[in-house]
This record gives sequence, C-alpha cells and structure tokens, in this order.
Amino acid sequence: MDRVVVIGGGAAGASAAARAKRLNPAVDVVVIEASSMITHAPCAIPYAIAGIARGEMFTYTPGEFERERGIRVMVNSRVTDIDVDKRIVHVRRGSVHDKLEWSRLVIATGAVPSTPGIPGTNLKGVVTLRHPAYVDEVRRVLEGTGRVAIVGGSYLGIEMAEALLSMGRRVLLIEKEDRLMPAALDTDMSEILASELTSKGVELHLNEGVVELAGGDRVERVVTDKGSYSADAVILATGVKPNVELALQAGVKLGSTGAVHVNEYMETNIEGVYAAGDVAEKHHRILKKSVWIPLATTANKEGQVAGANSIRSRAIRFPGVVGTVVTRFFSMYIAKTGLSTREAVENGIKVESRTIKARTKAHYFPGAVDVYVKLIIESSTERVLGAQVIGWDHAVAGYIDVASAAITSGATIEDLFFLDIGYTPSTAPVWHPLIVAARVLSKGRF
Amino acid sequence: MDRVVVIGGGAAGASAAARAKRLNPAVDVVVIEASSMITHAPCAIPYAIAGIARGEMFTYTPGEFERERGIRVMVNSRVTDIDVDKRIVHVRRGSVHDKLEWSRLVIATGAVPSTPGIPGTNLKGVVTLRHPAYVDEVRRVLEGTGRVAIVGGSYLGIEMAEALLSMGRRVLLIEKEDRLMPAALDTDMSEILASELTSKGVELHLNEGVVELAGGDRVERVVTDKGSYSADAVILATGVKPNVELALQAGVKLGSTGAVHVNEYMETNIEGVYAAGDVAEKHHRILKKSVWIPLATTANKEGQVAGANSIRSRAIRFPGVVGTVVTRFFSMYIAKTGLSTREAVENGIKVESRTIKARTKAHYFPGAVDVYVKLIIESSTERVLGAQVIGWDHAVAGYIDVASAAITSGATIEDLFFLDIGYTPSTAPVWHPLIVAARVLSKGRF
Repeated sequence: MDRVVVIGGGAAGASAAARAKRLNPAVDVVVIEASSMITHAPCAIPYAIAGIARGEMFTYTPGEFERERGIRVMVNSRVTDIDVDKRIVHVRRGSVHDKLEWSRLVIATGAVPSTPGIPGTNLKGVVTLRHPAYVDEVRRVLEGTGRVAIVGGSYLGIEMAEALLSMGRRVLLIEKEDRLMPAALDTDMSEILASELTSKGVELHLNEGVVELAGGDRVERVVTDKGSYSADAVILATGVKPNVELALQAGVKLGSTGAVHVNEYMETNIEGVYAAGDVAEKHHRILKKSVWIPLATTANKEGQVAGANSIRSRAIRFPGVVGTVVTRFFSMYIAKTGLSTREAVENGIKVESRTIKARTKAHYFPGAVDVYVKLIIESSTERVLGAQVIGWDHAVAGYIDVASAAITSGATIEDLFFLDIGYTPSTAPVWHPLIVAARVLSKGRF
Repeated sequence: MDRVVVIGGGAAGASAAARAKRLNPAVDVVVIEASSMITHAPCAIPYAIAGIARGEMFTYTPGEFERERGIRVMVNSRVTDIDVDKRIVHVRRGSVHDKLEWSRLVIATGAVPSTPGIPGTNLKGVVTLRHPAYVDEVRRVLEGTGRVAIVGGSYLGIEMAEALLSMGRRVLLIEKEDRLMPAALDTDMSEILASELTSKGVELHLNEGVVELAGGDRVERVVTDKGSYSADAVILATGVKPNVELALQAGVKLGSTGAVHVNEYMETNIEGVYAAGDVAEKHHRILKKSVWIPLATTANKEGQVAGANSIRSRAIRFPGVVGTVVTRFFSMYIAKTGLSTREAVENGIKVESRTIKARTKAHYFPGAVDVYVKLIIESSTERVLGAQVIGWDHAVAGYIDVASAAITSGATIEDLFFLDIGYTPSTAPVWHPLIVAARVLSKGRF
C-alpha cells in the first residue's frame, strides 16, 4: 500500500495532492474534504457576497479532480481521528464511518474564524464568514437590512465594507485597535485608508472593543466599551486561527504561534506526517523565526512542497515568507511587505522610515493617480525591511512585489534606488515612486 | 572659481546639476542647453503628437530651475568647444560667443536620431522625431495626411503607430528585421505584438529594408527591397545614436559601443570630466560588459551619480543596468528585462526558456485579461537571465520590475517560484503568472 492521504481540499491540500500524484501517478492519492467543494477560494467571499465575483469560487470540482488528475476526492467527509501508529485515518461521512490507511499524511485543515468570546454572537443576523459554501446563506441574512456593522478592521473587514457599500448598505466598522489593518500598516498609512473609508460613508469606530451583541431573537445593537450602535446585521471579521484540533489529537506538535510546527520540508514532528497551509507555521525570512500569516498564496506553495516531499523525501524546501499582503477598498489598493514598524520594534530591530506621496504615471499622462509609498529600513545597515503602498490603481500591487523581491534579496536602499525599474509614461513617472522613497531615505547620500 | 558646468539640460544633465547644487549650494552650477527647454521628456513625443499627453513635456522651466534650485541655465546655447587644458567651454548663443571656466564638467549631450543613409530623407513630409520642441511642427506635417508610413519597428515605431491610429491615419510600418522590437523580444513574443498591430489595422512589412523615399517636392512613396508603398508622410523611427561629437573633439574616449566610455563613477578618461545619460555607455550587470541602452530612467540615475561625484569625488557608484524596457500599444503593454534569447546567444550563454499564457486576476474576478510571460534561464545554473511580458493591463509593467529585481539579485527559478508575491483576487491570480512561468521551467522539480 503506497498512499498519500491529504486532509483538507483547500489551497494547500489540493496543491499537495496534485503535486504528489503528478510526481508519481502510481501512488494512490486521496483528499478528504469536510465541505462539498475543493480548491475553494475564501478570498472570493466578500466579492461573491457583493455579486462582484462571477462564476465559481473554486478551480476544480471534485469530479474534475478525480477524472483529470486521478486523485480520489471524498467530500462532505470529516476525519475524526488520526492513528499515527497504525497509519490510519478514521473518516465520517454523514452516518457512515470508514477508515483509510496512509503511508504519508498531509494535514491541510486550514484556519477557522476566531470569534470573540462575547454574548450575542449566536443571535440571528450575526454572520461569521467561513467558507464559499455559505455565501448564499450570508446573502439571505443580509436581505432587507439597512445598516450593517462589521467587527474587525483587517483585510476581511475592509473588503466586506466595500461589499456592503456596493450592496447599498450603510456600514459601521468597529476595530479594537487604534487603526485599520494594524498588523500590516503603520499609523500614517492606516490613516490614509481610514480617511478613504470615511469618505465613502463608512462610520468608523477605532479603539473600541465590542463587549456584546444585543437584541431579541435577532441582533439589534452592537455594544462596545464606548457606545452602543444599532445594526440590522453584524459581520464578525475578527480574524482566524489555525485549525489544529485534529493535529493535536494525533500528537502533532504546535509551535509558539499556536499553529503546527513544521520544518522547511513541511514535515511535522511525526514521521510521514506533513502539514501545509493555514494550519501550519511559516518561517519568516527577515525575522528568522516562525510566524503565522495565513494566506492562499503561501498555502499553495507549501502544499506543493509537502506534496513533492511526500513522494520524494526532502526533495524541496519552502524558504518562507516575508509577509506580503495586498487588498483593496474600491479603487484604492493597500499593500504591505516585510516588517511594519511595529513588527520591527517588537523584534528589537531599530528602524527608520519615510513616506512619500507620488503619482502613478508621468505628469503629462492622463489617468495618473496618487500613490503613497512608505519604506522601512534597518538603521544600522540601511537594509530595506518593509514597504507599505497605498494607491488608487491596481498596478500598485506590483510595487509591493518589487519591494518583496528586493527585501528577499537583502537589498539596501541604495540597491533599491539603482534597481532597473521599467518606465514608459503610461505606467510610471520617470522617477518611480519606489526609487523616490529610497532616495528620500538616503538623506542626500544619493 | 568652483564651478560645475553641465552640457545638456535633459534627464541626465538636469539631474546632475540639481544633485551638484544640492550637495554644495556654494558651488556655481551652470547648465548649457541647445534647445529652449530643460528637463524635457522625449518619451512624451508620440503621446504629445496624438494629443494624448496633457500639459508640458518638461518638469521645470529654465526660470524655475534658476529660482528654485539656484542653477544658472543658458538655453538656446551650444557648446562649440571644450578646452580640457584651460578648463573652459566655448558657448555660442545666436551670434554671441562666450566662454565659461569649469572645475568639473558633465557631458550630457544625449542621443541624436540615427537616420538611414538613403535618398529622399530630406523630402517634405519626412519626419524625424528629435525633441519635444518639434511636436507642433510634426503635427503640421501630418495635417491632411491619410496614409502615413513608419520606418522602424522598435519602441518609437510602435508608439507612433498608436499615435497615428489615434489621429485617424492609416498606418504602414516597415521593419528591416524579421520581427518587431527585435532588440527586446524573442520571435514568439514579437509575434503576439505583431498580431495586435495587424488587428488594429497597421499594415506591417517585416524583413523589408527601405532603399528610398520617393516623391517630387514632398514624399509620395516608400521604396523597399521588396515593394513600393504610397505614403503621404513618413516617420523615421530608425533608432538613435550617442551624441558624442563634442566629447570626441575634447579627447574624451569612446567605448566599443560608440558611446562615451565611463567607469562606475561616471568619470571619463579626462580628469574632472564626467559623462551621463544617453551619450555614455552603461555597465550591464548580467553581461558584465559595457552596452548602450539609452533610457531616461538610467539617464536620471547616472546624472545623479555624476552630479554627486562632481562635488564629492567618488561618493557614489552607478552599478549598471539589466536592460529593462517597457512600452505600450493602446491597451497592450510590452515589457522586457535582462537578456533576450538573442542577447544570450550572442554572448555565448546557453539558455532555456518557456512562455506561458495566463490571466491577470482571479478567474472569478471581472476585468481579467490575458498575459504572456516568457522566462529565460541559464541552462547550467537555472539563474533567471531574462523576462518578457505582454499583456492587456498596465499592471504587467510591475511584472517586469519584479523580474528585474529578481534578476539583479541573481535569483534562480526556484527563488522566483518562492518569492512572496502579493495576492488579492483583483490584482492577480492566486498563482501569479511569474510564479507559474518559473514552475513550468522547473520541469516538475517544483
């Protein structure tokens, strides 16, 4: 029996399965997925709710995966127990119990919403965004609502604010920290985002902790430590946590972040057991330590690595992440890579930073919009450690990717300044905003 | 007397002057410019002719440069001789002759059009694009024309094709090589561009050398080695050459490319004499040799370096270029960085490449368009040496900048595959096209 069993058919699980089968078609590869969907794209949820996204929120149906890839897919199936000694997983589908032997196991159980421990979260009208499968349900909950509160001002909260405004709702957003996207943005950049939300009509409450969702049968009010606000529905966008329950049961070791500890081969502490995607920790290439940043792109690559190594042991390493994230709010794109000032300070790194405002095209070219670029450098070495970019053009996502590449390579601001960035009047000013930001930080040295 | 004299007020000259004055306001800085304009942007010319560009094609007027920067600007003034021994330049403005002492000299005389040595180029209706100052003249020449021929299928030719089509002209484009943008694009990528030109109505003649421009007083026909085509006007977009005449007179050494030879400090062979911008050679960071790629972005940085070093000797080095270029044809953006296959072969480097077709956004997100990504790697090391990207979204310019950063850092395809590139459904697919191209080249290794 030579079988790779993958628990979870999301980004990491599907990638791992596809990779394993591709490398050795003779191996039996089985994906066990709790929902009815594989290769699902949770990033699509806000756009699907708003009706912006079109078509399916998955890449393959289970049937296609089976026919085109030769991978067995068990949907609506839950692994109830992992027996590490006998190398068996116990699976339940409805009332049917089954067991499956494995020679290699990939745990890709993803993340689950982390909802606040406050009264009222189970009232009608309170929504937690879990899975593309629940989009229609969320749309039904939002039917007929006028004023909707979002709890949480990170990516999902921002994206849901766009979605709800697009649907004609009045929107209230409550964030317990002093700024939006506090994990990614420094205060100055976050204020630009806050001002955009406010200008589009979002009622913003920062520095407010939600203490209760109140109502009768259905939610009517959000009560915070500073006030009480009426709401016809409440979206909980308070983050996610690694879905480690099953891994823990099996004796798989977690790291200090609370996610499954893996090495660069995506191996857990148990031989033959890999973990990939949101359930696992990631190595941070700047901080040189484990972090937990759950993202689909990383999950895909980790799945690829775990799948490859499940067939050819230690064939490939996952070098880690630098913390690149990007989102949008209508026409505004918000992106970050590397360390924020807070992350640097928390890790004892002395940094300097500057923020510049520039334009996205040559001054004479129509369609130019504003872009803000913040660069964060290590004071002692002038190495670029972080970048934050906000601009009204989707092209600014490319800025952050350039910064990510530069940061990954250990570039200093001088290296960044001299990067051979392309120019034509319709794509950038002749002095690219990233180059300008690097120059400004050099304090006249170049 | 402590004076920096800069010959040429374009990108390199203006940057050099600004930098020098900034670093030491006590130094007298003088810019001598042959036209009436400084900080002019020749990249704007096609868009200005078409009426797409708005506002001025310069960043500063001479007056602003004087008032705001404290830099003396002599416009409509030509340097007729550089006396290296006495450290004097002779300047002529109209009938007035003058001379000016210098302690440091920056030669930034740029490039001049390289027109083919064929009969008829001085007929009426034949246009060479030289300088933003001549845009109105070009527009007058094009008045009342129906069918216009462009000679030369590189950037300027492509951009002029867009300009002329926008102006309602019928357009004929003649290129002597077997493909468009032959210096930048491999055949497969060039064919995608050619097909776009054809689909917009451009009559394309590749592999045809122009032998004569024929007509009476005004041009009427373009005669090639394969045919004869009627044209009411002819745009010569046959490239540029370094404007080295003055440098040569002064005894400044040229390199094998025919441009002024400079070291990493932008020093020429004559002490105290710098060269920057299109007049100078550039160090190619991959080929480790001098090349001549005339671009405004490079000119700006070289000017910055020459200006800084004219004040603080050898304060800063210019590390060179990797050959990044980007242009557009209507909504299609065409970009290249690093080596093309031809450049690699010509330099004895064994390479492999793959081209992939992908989409610019998540499959369910509206507004996604096609993008083609070609990666070229060194066979022996798997180092990424070149990238070519064509897509119908200006965001693809960012792809080439990422590739440029990766190439500059010596990244392999594995490094590129694992780059932490950002993702949100509206800016990229979850597997970014660059990552997919890297994966395809790995032949199943990852």
